[in-house]
Amino acid sequence: MTHTVGVLGATGAVGQRLIQLLDPHPDFEIEALTASSESAGKPYRKAAKWRISTPIPDSVAEITVAETDPDAIPDVDLLFSSLPSSVGERVESDFCEAGYVVSSNSSNQRMAEDVPLVIPEVNADHLGLLEVQRDSRGWDGAMVKNPNCSTITMVPTLKALDEFGLSRVHVATLQAVSGAGYSGVTSMEIIDNAIPHIGGEEEKMESESKKLLGSFDGAELAAHDATVSASCNRIPTLDGHLENVWAEFEAGATVEDAVEAMESYQGIDLPSSPDPLIRVFEEPERPQPRLDRERENGMQICAGGLRESETGIQYNCLAHNTLRGAAGASVLNGELLAKEGYL
Amino acid sequence: MTHTVGVLGATGAVGQRLIQLLDPHPDFEIEALTASSESAGKPYRKAAKWRISTPIPDSVAEITVAETDPDAIPDVDLLFSSLPSSVGERVESDFCEAGYVVSSNSSNQRMAEDVPLVIPEVNADHLGLLEVQRDSRGWDGAMVKNPNCSTITMVPTLKALDEFGLSRVHVATLQAVSGAGYSGVTSMEIIDNAIPHIGGEEEKMESESKKLLGSFDGAELAAHDATVSASCNRIPTLDGHLENVWAEFEAGATVEDAVEAMESYQGIDLPSSPDPLIRVFEEPERPQPRLDRERENGMQICAGGLRESETGIQYNCLAHNTLRGAAGASVLNGELLAKEGYL
Amino acid sequence: MTHTVGVLGATGAVGQRLIQLLDPHPDFEIEALTASSESAGKPYRKAAKWRISTPIPDSVAEITVAETDPDAIPDVDLLFSSLPSSVGERVESDFCEAGYVVSSNSSNQRMAEDVPLVIPEVNADHLGLLEVQRDSRGWDGAMVKNPNCSTITMVPTLKALDEFGLSRVHVATLQAVSGAGYSGVTSMEIIDNAIPHIGGEEEKMESESKKLLGSFDGAELAAHDATVSASCNRIPTLDGHLENVWAEFEAGATVEDAVEAMESYQGIDLPSSPDPLIRVFEEPERPQPRLDRERENGMQICAGGLRESETGIQYNCLAHNTLRGAAGASVLNGELLAKEGYL
Amino acid sequence: MTHTVGVLGATGAVGQRLIQLLDPHPDFEIEALTASSESAGKPYRKAAKWRISTPIPDSVAEITVAETDPDAIPDVDLLFSSLPSSVGERVESDFCEAGYVVSSNSSNQRMAEDVPLVIPEVNADHLGLLEVQRDSRGWDGAMVKNPNCSTITMVPTLKALDEFGLSRVHVATLQAVSGAGYSGVTSMEIIDNAIPHIGGEEEKMESESKKLLGSFDGAELAAHDATVSASCNRIPTLDGHLENVWAEFEAGATVEDAVEAMESYQGIDLPSSPDPLIRVFEEPERPQPRLDRERENGMQICAGGLRESETGIQYNCLAHNTLRGAAGASVLNGELLAKEGYL
Repeated sequence: MTHTVGVLGATGAVGQRLIQLLDPHPDFEIEALTASSESAGKPYRKAAKWRISTPIPDSVAEITVAETDPDAIPDVDLLFSSLPSSVGERVESDFCEAGYVVSSNSSNQRMAEDVPLVIPEVNADHLGLLEVQRDSRGWDGAMVKNPNCSTITMVPTLKALDEFGLSRVHVATLQAVSGAGYSGVTSMEIIDNAIPHIGGEEEKMESESKKLLGSFDGAELAAHDATVSASCNRIPTLDGHLENVWAEFEAGATVEDAVEAMESYQGIDLPSSPDPLIRVFEEPERPQPRLDRERENGMQICAGGLRESETGIQYNCLAHNTLRGAAGASVLNGELLAKEGYL
Repeated sequence: MTHTVGVLGATGAVGQRLIQLLDPHPDFEIEALTASSESAGKPYRKAAKWRISTPIPDSVAEITVAETDPDAIPDVDLLFSSLPSSVGERVESDFCEAGYVVSSNSSNQRMAEDVPLVIPEVNADHLGLLEVQRDSRGWDGAMVKNPNCSTITMVPTLKALDEFGLSRVHVATLQAVSGAGYSGVTSMEIIDNAIPHIGGEEEKMESESKKLLGSFDGAELAAHDATVSASCNRIPTLDGHLENVWAEFEAGATVEDAVEAMESYQGIDLPSSPDPLIRVFEEPERPQPRLDRERENGMQICAGGLRESETGIQYNCLAHNTLRGAAGASVLNGELLAKEGYL
Repeated sequence: MTHTVGVLGATGAVGQRLIQLLDPHPDFEIEALTASSESAGKPYRKAAKWRISTPIPDSVAEITVAETDPDAIPDVDLLFSSLPSSVGERVESDFCEAGYVVSSNSSNQRMAEDVPLVIPEVNADHLGLLEVQRDSRGWDGAMVKNPNCSTITMVPTLKALDEFGLSRVHVATLQAVSGAGYSGVTSMEIIDNAIPHIGGEEEKMESESKKLLGSFDGAELAAHDATVSASCNRIPTLDGHLENVWAEFEAGATVEDAVEAMESYQGIDLPSSPDPLIRVFEEPERPQPRLDRERENGMQICAGGLRESETGIQYNCLAHNTLRGAAGASVLNGELLAKEGYL
Repeated sequence: MTHTVGVLGATGAVGQRLIQLLDPHPDFEIEALTASSESAGKPYRKAAKWRISTPIPDSVAEITVAETDPDAIPDVDLLFSSLPSSVGERVESDFCEAGYVVSSNSSNQRMAEDVPLVIPEVNADHLGLLEVQRDSRGWDGAMVKNPNCSTITMVPTLKALDEFGLSRVHVATLQAVSGAGYSGVTSMEIIDNAIPHIGGEEEKMESESKKLLGSFDGAELAAHDATVSASCNRIPTLDGHLENVWAEFEAGATVEDAVEAMESYQGIDLPSSPDPLIRVFEEPERPQPRLDRERENGMQICAGGLRESETGIQYNCLAHNTLRGAAGASVLNGELLAKEGYL
């Protein structure tokens, strides 16, 4: 069954990735695209500076871009939002109040206690928070968020390992420039360089991870009680976030246990979910961003280099930050909303 | 007072950096250069493919390169060695047995219990191990080692913080390609990429750090009992290793304590030692490899981003890997040997 | 109709690209793979360090690699050769003498007067030289060469423009590192740099272009009499050669004439030949290596920036150097050999 | 004798390079800095985001930034301008009318017939146009321009070769990202890529070169009658423009003639002018941006790869685009103005 969908913030980097994923999607059909007022009224092909190496899809090229306003768009079953968070903060709620169901990649409201923050393979059951949300906000619509790209890269592996009683996590990230948007990192800043700071990123990784790994009792969400400490870096790589993780457990876990746990963890089966969810490499030098970011349409989580450290298991993980980590994450949440009957 | 010196392995990347540092050095005068047998007999300017952007120094251009053999070189007060470790393993001992004092950057024998592994600002007193070494090996000469470049970047900051009782360290490195030698990393491997593995590097960081921070009672060296866990990555940066460190302490330490400890730590005063030893940045996005690696002739340790984590202090540090981390480290050890009367 | 094929030099960079193209090919079936003697006897998946981001094809993973010797391989209809030219010089003739038909990417013998140097869309008729070759060499087999990657990028556009009487060409290249093989350019050489020299490349572009654009009267090949002057540079790009061309003509040609000539030129229709052969961009900043090298499976020639200069037409062109410029070029020649009945 | 100077547009990339060069300058003393109104009133160290790896000079750190207005700044002998050309177009004339002498790097008015466009080593005599300028414009002040960075890289070599009767030039450029300003090229645009178009650059190279090489009879400037055709590319290099040049002559010139002409050409002796002006490499793979851009404080022109082509001499040249090609070019013009008595 096909659902009609729209994209809020369709001309930006994640907006373009959303269109790239939604155009061939078996269950979704794009009928609305919004952008800022300068773009409104133009056909999409003129409004967007298309920067993906595959051509702009015919299905969207001639759609007239609308303003990002509930009154300006046609009625659709589902909206994907990749608005800048400052704009999202302001208008996403307007859409929900107007009855729209929104799957949003924007960082605003991710930590609100009645907003489900979801990676379907990790915590699909948190979607139940939507009942709480509708009660508290009086919405006909609904708002689901996916986490930050650096969080998504790591959390599926932590979920797989949580059977050993995750107690403490250290993570250092090597993040690609595309995560900052098309113009976020200048070439003068990053060529022959690295930047050991990404504003707000460490806090997001810490709080979002604990929320994602937390438990929902049907009424309230309790965050996981593991401590998470992140150190975030930008490096001269185009796509693909690579992360070094140290995980500690209440119970002991061998490398074999950890590999087995990762390889067998699947979570849920949705159209865009890869199988297996996590690919574990034996070669210690893998995964690598350029070689492994495109696996399974950029949706697979890759892990490798599992080794015992004095206090737990140490490993590396990788995901495509604008596919699995942003646009693909929103699409997965849209698929979950469809499966659970919210559309 | 001037000492005559030689360079073993003078044509390689670190050998060239040694020459760059020794040429203008006030206390050392280059009189011998060795390389492999293909280069022996040629003037240095022909034997070496000079790859540093400043011109080859006149003082060495016409020196005839000798074979790396104690019988092939003139008598000099001090030898610097940047031999490949497989070669160093074989011949450095020959030079020491023949009476030469060797300051070596090669990784062989660094962990031998009668070989001092020294960063002068950190553990100059370990030089006393040379008496043990001469007793046990019957040498007239002596062998001092400096640690691996990734170890050097971090250990001065840990030493400064050890006043709070260092108990546990996690470190993730973002290492420059020059650390693998001129041809160590191909462009196809690293452009638009990162590699989460450097063979043997994590073990070196862990064992060398504990030896450097250990205590010497005049007879034996006891390693520091902190646990150290490293995760090493190669990134597309030319020079400068950047590291994310989490340090835990027996006593508590605030960020202010830690900044004060780093800024006031100096260790020892040698001609090539920077003042201050550690520069601490307030800006969270610093230090950065390209902007900060050249400070104080590439000899300063830079730190920044100090913040409290749940279990200690988290920060970033940086050093120029082929200057402070290799050639400059050997030169500092040579200066220490001169000061302590070993030449 | 399916032909059995083999790959000489199957473990190298171009060898892997050949396998990537031949595995899904409708008309060819891989039955033999050769490499150096260290690899011989191993299954291909162990002999090759697979470096392409798509997985190693199942169809070849278990093929036992043979030595590069006519007696060591099974009988196949066609061999593709990506041997180093020094090896190719020695053994390709042995295979031809033993009756094999060889489509070779190696640079040896490209300029021999009885060896057809072919881009099927440009000079398919030169294949007639094979009769001359068999007469002069007494071979049952046959040897066809494709040109150098930098030559292939430019020559289809020159052929299209030759209707205006090409008289003189200046070309400057910006070449990707993959053209030098996996280990050809170190990261220390090329990051934050460019190298204005590639040994032998300018001479190849000049002589090969004139041979490709030349005319064959059934007995002898006459080189085109245009002058060609090349300036070749290596830049920090992974794949895709970009070239700036100035073309002068005996007759005048406007930009519109030139665009029309390029867009309408097709040459020949083979399974791997793109349609159109040449894509002409209106946007002056295109084509760009990263955005345009993958078009039409990496087989399309892209052009753009056409403008009148005082003495002719100036433009830019681009092709994927290891697909259209090497492995794909050999496959196209194999398709031409099949079509013309040589298999 | 010391002259007081100011910098218009002091916070931008070229403005910072100007300060880096003027701070240690023997003849100039910085007394005024201007920027946009948001920066005005702040001390320079707060107004500028300092991005050069050497620290911000003490001599300027506390200067209060003024608005870019003749009434807002103290009286100084000479102003250097690195204003955006749109702003420069508007306000540089105001300063000249108010009596200031301006050495400007901005592109506006470079081609005006009464504005000298000068590289002191090439056409110092064109400064005589200032008399024409003052007559026509009624100014007490004066305006001198330096050309575009890509033009400066090539023109000194062409001037040296003009003794053979320069008739025609083809030039392809490989330009560094710093030429577009700090934020001019995003990392997403240029990593693993190249862009064959820089807006307006080719026209600047063509027209400016002819003006620089032209002759001044004391009243009027006649442009050189050689044809110049440029093709401009941006590549992933931080600093240093590399250019491939083909030069044709009325008289013949051998490679030896050309090398001799370049090596012996000096032009004029000013404090910041390198000696020799042009360094000619024998090694065909040099000059290279990273290895050679810093020679002689970034002020030397490097050339190499001289070879005969069918119609003239072909070679490569290189200069540091923000030093020799921008800030250093303005400083040289300031030195020429001082020497010629205009201050």
